[in-house]
Amino acid sequence: MGKLVIVGSTNIDSIESPFGKVERIVGGSAPFIALAATQFDLDVAIVSVIGEDFPKQYLDLLAARDIDLSALEIVKGGKTFFWKGKYHNDLNSRDTLATDLNVLADFKPVVPNAYTDADVVMLGNLHPNIQLSVINQMTKRPKLIILDTMNFWMDNTLNELLNVIKHIDVLTINDEEARQLTGEYSLVKAAHEIYGMGPKYVVIKKGEHGALLFHKQQVFFAPALPLEEVFDPTGAGDTFAGGFAGFMAATDDTSFENMKKAVIHGSNLASFCVEKFGTERMVNLKREEVNKRLHQFKTLTQFEIELQ
Amino acid sequence: MGKLVIVGSTNIDSIESPFGKVERIVGGSAPFIALAATQFDLDVAIVSVIGEDFPKQYLDLLAARDIDLSALEIVKGGKTFFWKGKYHNDLNSRDTLATDLNVLADFKPVVPNAYTDADVVMLGNLHPNIQLSVINQMTKRPKLIILDTMNFWMDNTLNELLNVIKHIDVLTINDEEARQLTGEYSLVKAAHEIYGMGPKYVVIKKGEHGALLFHKQQVFFAPALPLEEVFDPTGAGDTFAGGFAGFMAATDDTSFENMKKAVIHGSNLASFCVEKFGTERMVNLKREEVNKRLHQFKTLTQFEIELQ
Repeated sequence: MGKLVIVGSTNIDSIESPFGKVERIVGGSAPFIALAATQFDLDVAIVSVIGEDFPKQYLDLLAARDIDLSALEIVKGGKTFFWKGKYHNDLNSRDTLATDLNVLADFKPVVPNAYTDADVVMLGNLHPNIQLSVINQMTKRPKLIILDTMNFWMDNTLNELLNVIKHIDVLTINDEEARQLTGEYSLVKAAHEIYGMGPKYVVIKKGEHGALLFHKQQVFFAPALPLEEVFDPTGAGDTFAGGFAGFMAATDDTSFENMKKAVIHGSNLASFCVEKFGTERMVNLKREEVNKRLHQFKTLTQFEIELQ
Repeated sequence: MGKLVIVGSTNIDSIESPFGKVERIVGGSAPFIALAATQFDLDVAIVSVIGEDFPKQYLDLLAARDIDLSALEIVKGGKTFFWKGKYHNDLNSRDTLATDLNVLADFKPVVPNAYTDADVVMLGNLHPNIQLSVINQMTKRPKLIILDTMNFWMDNTLNELLNVIKHIDVLTINDEEARQLTGEYSLVKAAHEIYGMGPKYVVIKKGEHGALLFHKQQVFFAPALPLEEVFDPTGAGDTFAGGFAGFMAATDDTSFENMKKAVIHGSNLASFCVEKFGTERMVNLKREEVNKRLHQFKTLTQFEIELQ
């Protein structure tokens, strides 16, 4: 069985969207990635940190999905990373109202012994030095190292980010960030520029506009499923990355063809994530629902065409 | 052979983009639609108006593509509709620097006798009353009436627009305009709302993010081809509509399956349009180039996936 180790933040989030508000629910890249990845048959461990205030019910939720929590450090007397945000009416932009790093500020990740030979390493959005530390703890070169990041690290720790990117196979990044990182407006040119920084594969996430997978001269595009209801975009990018990483770890095949499937699985799972606040839709997601929507993805995009 | 009649503006455009500027080139919905439609085997006529200042070389270009220009009225002593615009660095937004309606202000479209029984009517972006007048001149209900419009007509002539929309089969509109017309943020909901206004098919154009085709509960998505170079987005939406309408007129099949192909053809042709200023890329476009890129569209979107 494939092994996936995930490093990322574990948050308490308070979120307001045009459709309502929630207070102090579980969030962060690690839980979202792990909940998506466990849709596949594989062993999953989270490397993360929380404080004593983290609600036990959320730990139980993660444990119930057979996520290995042995490397989820609980800091005595500490407070969990807290994020508070408010989405605007179009859900495409948001105001961050609070970012209290708390225990995340001094986080030293420790990869559990059983996972230092993991097949796939998923480096969720975090300080690049924490991401690098996880790579350095691996006793065997993983088949695939995937890194997700955001503009905050480009603005504040660009050298550290460029340093860790050298060691990875797949960079997942959104379209604006790809443009910021490379100075190229064309996403094709941006992806090719990123190859030169290390990654052989580049996934450019475009939110409601889908995702692009680049490898050498090849490109593959997965749309986002057009939805009637979008409640809360929080975690959609991490869910995408978790679906991608989970599928790649569950299948022993790092070919471009297989990675295309991983992109579809990621997009498919992300389409559920946004339908409820936080992780609510993901914790009870059924295989049948996932399969039904995969079928919708095929219907949405597949066509027959004769050349003129 | 299928017959397509197109009503639309014929402009003289001056355009500035981050990649250069051009003065007084041919533009407008009618030429862009017609140049795309003539990629297919069909008879095409333009119903439009120009002034005596319209350069003969551009008339020759259109005639060379076997476009019937008998209903392209030339107003003696009149000046052609002139548009001047400047694109911002991201090419997604632009400033309109001049809009001189000139002869377009009093345009009374006259459908040529040979085209009052056309299979497909393509109503390019114009005053809705002009669009309605073309419908009323048809002696036989066309198999398909397609209408393209924009926010300007929603802002200024909403009642007239709603009146003409009652009589059409396919509305093509961009995502922001679909939201404006319906008050629905979700494009799925917006499309369903538009069904209630008359059209059985809704095409929502998302520019560089592709296009969605809606019919009843069905949805199909065509991406825009990721390009290395985008020079000038002017005419891309019209080129899309022209490819769509041309393919539908050339094939005697108004099924959803065939319309999916029309959306792909439209996206494919639009991908060429933006590579040069104005109509430059479209006037000499070769069948082999078109076919090669259709193949890229398949590679970009087609995947095999097994259910878990």
